[in-house]
Amino acid sequence: MQALKDRIRAEGQNLGNGILKIDSLLNHQLDPQLMVGMGRTLAQLFAGVRVDRILTAEISGIAPALMAGIEMQVPVVYARKKQPITMRGIIYVESAPSHTKGGTVDLLVSGEFLKAGEQVLIIDDFLATGQTLMALARLIQAAGAHVAGVGVVVEKSFEGGRAAMLKAGYTCPIHALATITAMDDGGITLA
Amino acid sequence: MQALKDRIRAEGQNLGNGILKIDSLLNHQLDPQLMVGMGRTLAQLFAGVRVDRILTAEISGIAPALMAGIEMQVPVVYARKKQPITMRGIIYVESAPSHTKGGTVDLLVSGEFLKAGEQVLIIDDFLATGQTLMALARLIQAAGAHVAGVGVVVEKSFEGGRAAMLKAGYTCPIHALATITAMDDGGITLA
Repeated sequence: MQALKDRIRAEGQNLGNGILKIDSLLNHQLDPQLMVGMGRTLAQLFAGVRVDRILTAEISGIAPALMAGIEMQVPVVYARKKQPITMRGIIYVESAPSHTKGGTVDLLVSGEFLKAGEQVLIIDDFLATGQTLMALARLIQAAGAHVAGVGVVVEKSFEGGRAAMLKAGYTCPIHALATITAMDDGGITLA
Repeated sequence: MQALKDRIRAEGQNLGNGILKIDSLLNHQLDPQLMVGMGRTLAQLFAGVRVDRILTAEISGIAPALMAGIEMQVPVVYARKKQPITMRGIIYVESAPSHTKGGTVDLLVSGEFLKAGEQVLIIDDFLATGQTLMALARLIQAAGAHVAGVGVVVEKSFEGGRAAMLKAGYTCPIHALATITAMDDGGITLA
C-alpha cells in the first residue's frame, strides 16, 4: 500500500532494538484517510476468502480491524488483555510473550463472540515474531473456529514471524500492507 | 440515535451497580454498520463546531472516535493508559478515578499530538461520572488547546457527569447518542 509506505518513510522512526515508532499514524494518533485506505486494501487482499468475523487484539489493532470490518461488512471482535467486569461465562484465554513490554500478555475473548465453524480473519498492527498473532489463532481454534487469514498493517520480516507461523502449521494467507525488511544502522528499509 | 437505542434495548444487560454491558456492539465486539452510523451522527451533532483534532481514551473510545474522525476529516488521538516505549519528549499526564476498575487510571498524551490553540473534540464510549472526560479535558488544556465539545456513545444521566462537568466550568456542547436515565430494578430506561 503505497500511501502507507510513503508515510512510514516520512514519519517512521527507528528507536533501536527493532522498535518502529509510527505513533503519528497508527499507535497514538490515527489518520482517518489513511485508515480508510487500509480497510479497503485489506478487504481487497482477502476478497477471495470467506470471512465471518474479524478478530484483533486491543489496543492498536482495533482501528485497522474496524476499517477492514466496515469494508467486509463483518463484526469485529477485539481480544481484551484484562478481564472486564462485563466478561462472564465461557472465556477463551491465551498468552503471548510481549515483544515490547517484557513478560507475557494475556488475550481474552468471550465465548459469546467466537463460534464453532466460523471463518475468522485475524487483523493486527504488527507482524514481528508472530507470537501475538499465533495466540489470537489459538483463541479461534479453542472456539472450534478456523483461521481464515492474517492481515497486518506492518510486517517486520527480519523478525521471522511469517516463517514461525508457517512452521507452526498456519497455511492460511498472510498479508501485510507494508513490509520492513531491515532496521539496521538506524534506518528503515521498506520492501 | 434510534439504531443505537434499539440495539441497547435488545442486547444491553444491566449487571447491577450501574454497570451496562453492551459488549456485543461496543466494548468487545464492534458492529461495523452501527459504528458508521455513530460517526455520521456525531459529525452532524458537532457540525457547527470548529474541530481540529479528536481526543479519546483507549480502549473502547477508539472506535467511535475514529468513525467521527473519518466523517469530520480530522486526526484522532487516543490517550494511552501506560507509557509505551515509543512515547518520549513532552508528555501530558492526568489521572481519573476508575469507575469500573477501582483505583485511578492515568491518561497520557504526547506533546506531539496536542497543540496550543487547537479546538479539540473529546469522544468516548460513556459519560458516567464525567471523571475520565474531565481528565481528557485537562490534557487538552495542559497543551494550551481548547475543548471544542464532548461526544459520547452512551450517557448514564443518573450518574451526574454532565452536571459535574458544567459545575467544573465546561460550557462546551455535550452530546450523547443514547441516554440512559435509570438502571433500577435490573432494568435499562432509555430517554
